[in-house]
Amino acid sequence: MVDLDENYMELALELAALGEGDVNPNPMVGAVVVKVGEIIGKGYHKKYGGPHAEVFALDEAGKESEGATIYVTLEPCSHYGKTPPCAEKIIKMGIKRCVIATLDPNPLVAGKGAKLLENAGIEVKINVLKDAALKQNIVFFKYIEGKIPYLFLKCAITLDGKIATENGDSKWISNEISRARVQGLRHKYMGIMVGIKTLLGDNPRLNARIEGGNNPHRIVVDPGLKTPENYNFIQNNSDNKSIIITSKENIQSGKHLKYEKKYKVKFIFLDGNRFLMVDILKEIGKLGIDSILLEGGNSMISMAFKEKALDGGEIFIAPKITGDNNAIPFVSGFKIGTMKESIELKDTKFNIYGDNIAIEFSL
Amino acid sequence: MVDLDENYMELALELAALGEGDVNPNPMVGAVVVKVGEIIGKGYHKKYGGPHAEVFALDEAGKESEGATIYVTLEPCSHYGKTPPCAEKIIKMGIKRCVIATLDPNPLVAGKGAKLLENAGIEVKINVLKDAALKQNIVFFKYIEGKIPYLFLKCAITLDGKIATENGDSKWISNEISRARVQGLRHKYMGIMVGIKTLLGDNPRLNARIEGGNNPHRIVVDPGLKTPENYNFIQNNSDNKSIIITSKENIQSGKHLKYEKKYKVKFIFLDGNRFLMVDILKEIGKLGIDSILLEGGNSMISMAFKEKALDGGEIFIAPKITGDNNAIPFVSGFKIGTMKESIELKDTKFNIYGDNIAIEFSL
Repeated sequence: MVDLDENYMELALELAALGEGDVNPNPMVGAVVVKVGEIIGKGYHKKYGGPHAEVFALDEAGKESEGATIYVTLEPCSHYGKTPPCAEKIIKMGIKRCVIATLDPNPLVAGKGAKLLENAGIEVKINVLKDAALKQNIVFFKYIEGKIPYLFLKCAITLDGKIATENGDSKWISNEISRARVQGLRHKYMGIMVGIKTLLGDNPRLNARIEGGNNPHRIVVDPGLKTPENYNFIQNNSDNKSIIITSKENIQSGKHLKYEKKYKVKFIFLDGNRFLMVDILKEIGKLGIDSILLEGGNSMISMAFKEKALDGGEIFIAPKITGDNNAIPFVSGFKIGTMKESIELKDTKFNIYGDNIAIEFSL
Repeated sequence: MVDLDENYMELALELAALGEGDVNPNPMVGAVVVKVGEIIGKGYHKKYGGPHAEVFALDEAGKESEGATIYVTLEPCSHYGKTPPCAEKIIKMGIKRCVIATLDPNPLVAGKGAKLLENAGIEVKINVLKDAALKQNIVFFKYIEGKIPYLFLKCAITLDGKIATENGDSKWISNEISRARVQGLRHKYMGIMVGIKTLLGDNPRLNARIEGGNNPHRIVVDPGLKTPENYNFIQNNSDNKSIIITSKENIQSGKHLKYEKKYKVKFIFLDGNRFLMVDILKEIGKLGIDSILLEGGNSMISMAFKEKALDGGEIFIAPKITGDNNAIPFVSGFKIGTMKESIELKDTKFNIYGDNIAIEFSL
């Protein structure tokens, strides 16, 4: 039998997904108002700081909300944040029944919204398509817990696992369809991170080249502060989103002052010259960045695997073979005696992009 | 509009495929007899030396063959080989029309069968689903031309292109579904070839562990004649299918005499200690082996790529990463400056086996 609640919640989840890349570090949320089998209001959270999904849906339904059911992918908020609490609005509009995919993990809300509704005599049903809702906002749920950004790997490798030739050439490993997909990933995550070698080698723009795409925060891990002034990373910073993570040892040179003042580059200073990914993530999290797309190269990726810091990733495989032991592998630095000791990717899923195949995974 | 000729030929091709692995070095052939829109006879070449497809189909149709159409995936033979010519039988049975997917490349036949039919007043139509028919018998067509076996690579690699750890452990890279598929490949090809390192490391059985599977000829490339007497390769040779390719320099030691006499192992002797794949293939071809599944390891695979000797292959990729530069790559020995110089696999197709993905290709 068709479960109508699940059907409407599915629609609400689809609506929520429209906010992807625009609402961080808020969660994506969708809402649908239904009366006597008819959808009378739809809405989603469109933009960080803007109205919540429930507001759009209830305003569209208007007076017809009286006696209707509302479906929301996340528990309606009960606190005054950037906007008035949605739970109050639901009560005020005369909603009779509220179906919620999952309660809010935010300690400021945590079941309070549902309680408020129940106290007002509204029938509340929770955990409808909960898993799908949790998965949709996996970035949000991780970040809200410990302020550590969600770390997602993207890399393009040959069949023998190389990301560049010995002298650094990597143009191109993946095909055009794969590279277009990467632009979408850059829109989805709040930050994009590379190591200094990748920056020096490619002088990348690190922006989201899709229509209506949000540029991510650009982060380079550059212990020795070698980022050149004339590079895109410094010059193309009109959105003030370039961040350099460097050693405290570079403070006395004063080089960072020019980058800060003239180009508005942000700096994170860490102890020593070999950083830990966990420290890097902690500092980035403090800036309100909830998710990072890690774009390589070898030392950043190896560090992420070593520290088990990755939450997931998508590895694009091209049907090419270098056959060259000196070409640069995407991961190195491990020593294993048996195959059982190798790193196993979990929850794998395959995405086919023409003659490239990508393996999506969690860790 | 539906092309009826193509429809019946499709069925004939499906029938032909049932002979896979059992007819080499003959081609797979299927035949269908149709009268007034009804299929009255079906057949396929089941076994090397046994009756041809047309015989089964015509015998099933019996007297009804009079005035019927026969669909054959390969030109009916006109010469007396192991069986009487099929073209004669087609004429004798009163067939009115003959549809052929492709003419026979065998110089003993080469259009003669079609000619014979036409001379007897039978309407002949050729090249119906020709490409599919050529592809189905790609092994046969290659072998008939130059007596060089078709070489197909099978290997299982990690995401970083390794086939074993530094100390040789490879159990297991691929999952059970992939390994079951390999048994099918072993049935399909007439020979299976490994290098001496793989033999010494794994003591493999190299048989086709599927129901009704034909064991392939087992071939080891062993320049120094190091194959141990107590290994499966020597001991399990009741089918007389073990073949050692070794250096002529080993003849004087007389070690091969025991293997030949006591265990019926066949020998191929080549000059020097570093063989070329092209020479190996030529010698194997002389034994009437039309196709070889190359199962590794690194030096055999690298040699095959170096000499561009591969016709195709299937590379199984497991979602595992060794991250170990000293683990054994599936291909090595190349030096490339730019990505453009890497080997590109053509006609790629992806096969998903659970959490493994295989890339099938031609070269």
